[in-house]
Amino acid sequence: MSSPSTETPVLSHLDESGQVRMVDVSGKQPSQRTAIAEGRIRMSPAAYRLLSSQDNAKGEVLNTARVAGVLAAKRCAELIPLCHSLPLSFAGIDFLPDDTTHSITITATCRSDYKTGVEMEAMTACSVAALTIYDMCKAADKGIVLENIRLRYKSGGKSGEWRND
Amino acid sequence: MSSPSTETPVLSHLDESGQVRMVDVSGKQPSQRTAIAEGRIRMSPAAYRLLSSQDNAKGEVLNTARVAGVLAAKRCAELIPLCHSLPLSFAGIDFLPDDTTHSITITATCRSDYKTGVEMEAMTACSVAALTIYDMCKAADKGIVLENIRLRYKSGGKSGEWRND
Amino acid sequence: MSSPSTETPVLSHLDESGQVRMVDVSGKQPSQRTAIAEGRIRMSPAAYRLLSSQDNAKGEVLNTARVAGVLAAKRCAELIPLCHSLPLSFAGIDFLPDDTTHSITITATCRSDYKTGVEMEAMTACSVAALTIYDMCKAADKGIVLENIRLRYKSGGKSGEWRND
Amino acid sequence: MSSPSTETPVLSHLDESGQVRMVDVSGKQPSQRTAIAEGRIRMSPAAYRLLSSQDNAKGEVLNTARVAGVLAAKRCAELIPLCHSLPLSFAGIDFLPDDTTHSITITATCRSDYKTGVEMEAMTACSVAALTIYDMCKAADKGIVLENIRLRYKSGGKSGEWRND
Amino acid sequence: MSSPSTETPVLSHLDESGQVRMVDVSGKQPSQRTAIAEGRIRMSPAAYRLLSSQDNAKGEVLNTARVAGVLAAKRCAELIPLCHSLPLSFAGIDFLPDDTTHSITITATCRSDYKTGVEMEAMTACSVAALTIYDMCKAADKGIVLENIRLRYKSGGKSGEWRND
Amino acid sequence: MSSPSTETPVLSHLDESGQVRMVDVSGKQPSQRTAIAEGRIRMSPAAYRLLSSQDNAKGEVLNTARVAGVLAAKRCAELIPLCHSLPLSFAGIDFLPDDTTHSITITATCRSDYKTGVEMEAMTACSVAALTIYDMCKAADKGIVLENIRLRYKSGGKSGEWRND
Repeated sequence: MSSPSTETPVLSHLDESGQVRMVDVSGKQPSQRTAIAEGRIRMSPAAYRLLSSQDNAKGEVLNTARVAGVLAAKRCAELIPLCHSLPLSFAGIDFLPDDTTHSITITATCRSDYKTGVEMEAMTACSVAALTIYDMCKAADKGIVLENIRLRYKSGGKSGEWRND
Repeated sequence: MSSPSTETPVLSHLDESGQVRMVDVSGKQPSQRTAIAEGRIRMSPAAYRLLSSQDNAKGEVLNTARVAGVLAAKRCAELIPLCHSLPLSFAGIDFLPDDTTHSITITATCRSDYKTGVEMEAMTACSVAALTIYDMCKAADKGIVLENIRLRYKSGGKSGEWRND
Repeated sequence: MSSPSTETPVLSHLDESGQVRMVDVSGKQPSQRTAIAEGRIRMSPAAYRLLSSQDNAKGEVLNTARVAGVLAAKRCAELIPLCHSLPLSFAGIDFLPDDTTHSITITATCRSDYKTGVEMEAMTACSVAALTIYDMCKAADKGIVLENIRLRYKSGGKSGEWRND
Repeated sequence: MSSPSTETPVLSHLDESGQVRMVDVSGKQPSQRTAIAEGRIRMSPAAYRLLSSQDNAKGEVLNTARVAGVLAAKRCAELIPLCHSLPLSFAGIDFLPDDTTHSITITATCRSDYKTGVEMEAMTACSVAALTIYDMCKAADKGIVLENIRLRYKSGGKSGEWRND
Repeated sequence: MSSPSTETPVLSHLDESGQVRMVDVSGKQPSQRTAIAEGRIRMSPAAYRLLSSQDNAKGEVLNTARVAGVLAAKRCAELIPLCHSLPLSFAGIDFLPDDTTHSITITATCRSDYKTGVEMEAMTACSVAALTIYDMCKAADKGIVLENIRLRYKSGGKSGEWRND
Repeated sequence: MSSPSTETPVLSHLDESGQVRMVDVSGKQPSQRTAIAEGRIRMSPAAYRLLSSQDNAKGEVLNTARVAGVLAAKRCAELIPLCHSLPLSFAGIDFLPDDTTHSITITATCRSDYKTGVEMEAMTACSVAALTIYDMCKAADKGIVLENIRLRYKSGGKSGEWRND
């Protein structure tokens, strides 16, 4: 599914003795990094209808989820133990509601010009935005599902561009 | 998919004017609450093999994810805007690796004896545990997918028991 | 300005030797507590017009500020050193724009049934909501002013009801 | 009140469709940035007298507020949703008590050499320092008012120096 | 060194399969809990003299350390993975400088009326207060040592009173 | 005990009037910084035996402590008031159990290429890792002691290399 890669497939967060460790990026050069993560939240037709029937409602719910996602992107390194803390130059969340599948596709884009990638920031922002929608719609449907959260795109750093379409 | 419910399907986090608001639980009675969320993280056969080949590796990765999930459960109200902060009496994460689908099923269980449910705590713990596994295995497979994160079980409170099998 | 009070006017956060200390509430009984804080953010006519000209713009900005205020209420004890951490049963933010003074009045309401008052939670929520509006409008007017942030109402606890009109 | 500016007065945190977004600073150059915010906390003569009568008391209260303000400056991006997280090179709080108006003027200075301004860090530090004083003096006067919190000075970045006297 | 105990010596945070888990306190009754931790920070005579020569200096440094310790007590469950988050009814820090050994003894006292002990809150508060003193004195002596941080006293809960003199 | 130093022994965090302040690093150049802190946790023979008897148990406890220490390193500036927030390029924790003294030596290494040293990050990581071990073993021995937490090594910046053996 992913494009061919020349990277050695290793678990970079384990040291020789098999114990977890942060990757040391002291020797890395900063470069422009972008990562895009995507996921989908699918709800019952009734819940989706409730959310969509009032324009304001949808706007408020999605804005709340967007704010939560952006805040989570900035706090990613507090949540994901071996992630580097870094200054993000951008974190944005987009929503694409789909009336036929009563689902919303969530896209999170993060950028930094620091020494490590921002995949985790994008994945975390996407997940927390989805969780926030779940929270606000769960009174109408507890069975809402977060589906298919994954990295879509990544650029910058030694490994260059990567796409997952 | 979910069991029949007598609750009115409304978006409880919107007020009459359609603006977001926290639910006021001042009048609610405390009760024993449990929520169980489940999700799955699916990776390439190669990444799964790397993770599984050393017993220690898998133990370290899963323990790190477990710790991250438990910590996230406790900080859920910082991430999910309209979630109530509350003392959890328990937060636990279990992993069930499946060699045939090269995936790991993650189950998060949260308990509280406060006035609101702990669904969001369980959903958040499950998601952050999955994100942590993603982080630690992404060097071997950037295309790892978080699938099907959803509530499995809930008990306590006015609405009683709910299952989603 | 405030209603007469029978409380002894002391600085409760200083001990006998004049050093700061948290108030020990071990012996206090829980009771229903409410606190309402109010403040105003005043901007230039041009900035206010920009904010008001698009309905969506105002909704998005105020919702973002509301979310920030609610999140800040829940994290008040992390910011205000001698404040007790406690579970809030409610935190809500209301906005009242005033076209003639090109200002917005912000009201923050917090509730808890714990052993201490929630004045600081309401004051903090109000301030952070105002700061968030400042942030989002500062490109149009850096000179925006936060005015008159103060407690309006308080009930519960030994000292009972208090109003500041 | 503010000095003339050549910036286009727009709400930089809204995109074309009127939805909130973080400003993308990927293309910006780092530069030395300073921001100074100022506010005033005004209390009843009795409360002010209590605070001032013991030198130690005032020192302890103001030091506690200073510490809270500095810590808040560093965590500004967690509180203000669309603010960039960045490393501060300095955060400082100064207090100027005024016996005649029984008020204390609070000045917060922040510096960074990153790509965005630090206005929000200074405004947040000033507000949290004021809130901390409120917290510690509210037993003597619940009606204490936070007045006139605003940006006083800003330098660095494309828009250069700005004063608000 | 510790008083005899009838508790079974087990590692309560490991489950049957040897994996870490939070203790489930769902079935426990709340009770008044107190814990006192103690530690010592020992510095070079020169650094101690610098700290002590100005009364104000010592007051400011110790107040800053006290504030940091109290804040850390409240955030203990964010730092210590398997610790329960709970509302503290009190957190206090005391300092006892000793001129002959140029050291300062730090005592942290925490109280709660929740279902679990507050040992970790007291231990964390004591450690962070000590680290804060280290930070502020390290320019004069990088070799400052944190010594002998341990629990001194504990009461409440099923195991009752415990002393470590 | 420490190597001779040409630095003036001053309390760098106090200004001329004796009040605490953050050091202004605006004018400093970034350089590669490393700091290593070390501490020891000593427990009763019985507790140490429990921890050591199952290989898995020790691995799980130490991994949990390692994760907690790394997370604490990244959040150091939230805990230590006058510490600068900065991006760490590495944070790692090592454990050296000693069967004869039934103690574990904890070493924390931090790196950054920012403008200030990372001593506090290393000291905090070491302390929180030790506290986490305490938490997980306290059911077997409440009297566990954290001993001798101190800086071992530091390099980078104007003052260059420093050792404390």
